[in-house]
Amino acid sequence: MQGKYKALWLNKDGNLEVLDQRFLPFEERIITISDTDGAIKAIKNMTVRGAGIIGNVAAFGVYLTAKNCGGNLAKIEISAKKICKSRPTAVNLSWAIDRMLIVAQKSDNIIEDLRLEAIKIADEDSKKSKKIAKYGADLIEKIMKKKNLKYFNILTHCNAGWLAIIDDGTALAPIYEAKKRGIDIRVWVDETRPRNQGANLTAWELSKANIAHTVIADNTGGHLMQNNMVDMVITGADRVAKNADSANKIGTYLKALAAKDNNVPFYIALPSSTFDFNIINGVKDIPIEVRDGKEVRNMRGLDKKGKVKDFQIIQSNSPVVNYGFDVTPARLITRLITERGLCKANKNSITKMFKDLM
Amino acid sequence: MQGKYKALWLNKDGNLEVLDQRFLPFEERIITISDTDGAIKAIKNMTVRGAGIIGNVAAFGVYLTAKNCGGNLAKIEISAKKICKSRPTAVNLSWAIDRMLIVAQKSDNIIEDLRLEAIKIADEDSKKSKKIAKYGADLIEKIMKKKNLKYFNILTHCNAGWLAIIDDGTALAPIYEAKKRGIDIRVWVDETRPRNQGANLTAWELSKANIAHTVIADNTGGHLMQNNMVDMVITGADRVAKNADSANKIGTYLKALAAKDNNVPFYIALPSSTFDFNIINGVKDIPIEVRDGKEVRNMRGLDKKGKVKDFQIIQSNSPVVNYGFDVTPARLITRLITERGLCKANKNSITKMFKDLM
Repeated sequence: MQGKYKALWLNKDGNLEVLDQRFLPFEERIITISDTDGAIKAIKNMTVRGAGIIGNVAAFGVYLTAKNCGGNLAKIEISAKKICKSRPTAVNLSWAIDRMLIVAQKSDNIIEDLRLEAIKIADEDSKKSKKIAKYGADLIEKIMKKKNLKYFNILTHCNAGWLAIIDDGTALAPIYEAKKRGIDIRVWVDETRPRNQGANLTAWELSKANIAHTVIADNTGGHLMQNNMVDMVITGADRVAKNADSANKIGTYLKALAAKDNNVPFYIALPSSTFDFNIINGVKDIPIEVRDGKEVRNMRGLDKKGKVKDFQIIQSNSPVVNYGFDVTPARLITRLITERGLCKANKNSITKMFKDLM
Repeated sequence: MQGKYKALWLNKDGNLEVLDQRFLPFEERIITISDTDGAIKAIKNMTVRGAGIIGNVAAFGVYLTAKNCGGNLAKIEISAKKICKSRPTAVNLSWAIDRMLIVAQKSDNIIEDLRLEAIKIADEDSKKSKKIAKYGADLIEKIMKKKNLKYFNILTHCNAGWLAIIDDGTALAPIYEAKKRGIDIRVWVDETRPRNQGANLTAWELSKANIAHTVIADNTGGHLMQNNMVDMVITGADRVAKNADSANKIGTYLKALAAKDNNVPFYIALPSSTFDFNIINGVKDIPIEVRDGKEVRNMRGLDKKGKVKDFQIIQSNSPVVNYGFDVTPARLITRLITERGLCKANKNSITKMFKDLM
């Protein structure tokens, strides 16, 4: 139980420090979170994002609440509910908070037990990430052998690296592992408008790891797949229903359609905590967050002097709308890559593999 | 024969003036084109863009060349070839130049005849646009009646309005006509990265015409269609093959896939000059332009003081690539909307309707 991860860590005062993802790749800023409101704000304004990291910040947020109120269970429960409402789509958030509350309700040493539980969740995420890395990289090797490929082109949307899931991510975990195994892996990085998590976060992670990658406009993937330039599509997920319909960053569904149309295998990589077994039909029932239109209208970048600035790119006369996620129907998903191995994208296979968690 | 259109016009000196589309919607600048090089530069750097307008600027460019060289046919032919190479995908460019050269080769009054031919091409484009408007609006009314709709949601990608085709566009022509007919029409405008012609040009055109519209990230259309929020998708085209495979702005193919997956009708609106009857298989053989990566890496917008500025949005450490177009296979296209009416998207129907042009 270390409490020190790449995207977040506990500092010597017992508060949570996180990388401020809103300024990457241009500036590496660190934000300290010391209470409930700090955790809620960081999740809402996307100082942190990504299904797993949101869950971790929520869990540490519950611990910080406990620390600040002397372990008063009633106060902890009220704050936990507030944190739980900070974003609607990623299910890891409510999953992590549920775990924290169960510990709180049973504990005689509530502050320390919550600290340990938040660390335990993060450590488990790290282990799951490593398993996903292994299963995904095995798959890449298998496809390369079958197709007799010298290098491997993989397309990903948004960011599901270590900025999203402790400590190597989900979609990026097999890529990191492939690199370790000496595979010549090349990544097409969808820019991922409106917030550009692909260009800002995934490309930054990959360049830090010295992995070959190319940033493309979100419109490009169909053309690449049509022209045999993609061997696999892999993304993370924010919530996966019992029928395997998978909510992920808006635009994922379009890439899944293009993959299907061109016989490119399409994978969703997720830890089991991203399943929502209460949702039977994902397309129908997963709640989709509508975020502030400012994220569409404005953009962050560098001015001519190299200073980080916000710019308006859409005229004030035009309304905008900002759906944060879409749902990819199970029929478009080749397999789910989980910490327990590859799982067919249907209710029966999920039920068989994860019965003990339901 | 007027020689005065919304996006371009001849000035009193006989030179061509065009709206500089690179600064819209933030500034309305006018550029004067007075020779071959000016025409090539304006087409290459996208001062003007859009299949039709490129053809018009090319045609007027040939006229200006003639004017400057005193109607020397050999010089005109050399310059025309240079203009023809300025962009590869839109076929209207070579089509317009071919028409101009045929006139030049036959003429006894070469400068004046070329001036009149360039105007004739533009006037014909205007007439075709009006026909497309009528057929498209008839279709909208028919669908509204059949589905008993009170308002009509239409999604478009890139810009195929009067900034692209004289004088009401292709994809936007039915929308303008529907508005005239009093239909409550609402337009989803794809931002259209990397150059944002949707956000910058289509949204600007629609706001000027007081037509209800909402700008969305290119990733959004799939989610909208899946949730029954789109009644029709309509786009223009840059080149349509004999088998109806249609090249248009990168990302069009992804929207066509989503339309098919959700039973939303998908239309390509085009004047017959956008057909390339020499290309039998569009997906295989239409040339796709690869443009400067700077268009992906940098963006134009307003700074806090409201000044138009360029800024960098993708870190210098990451390579980028910029494919300008993709090809939507005919099987995804419900109908082509042409100046001769609706045409099924297959070789036989195209051959039947346009035999005289082949």
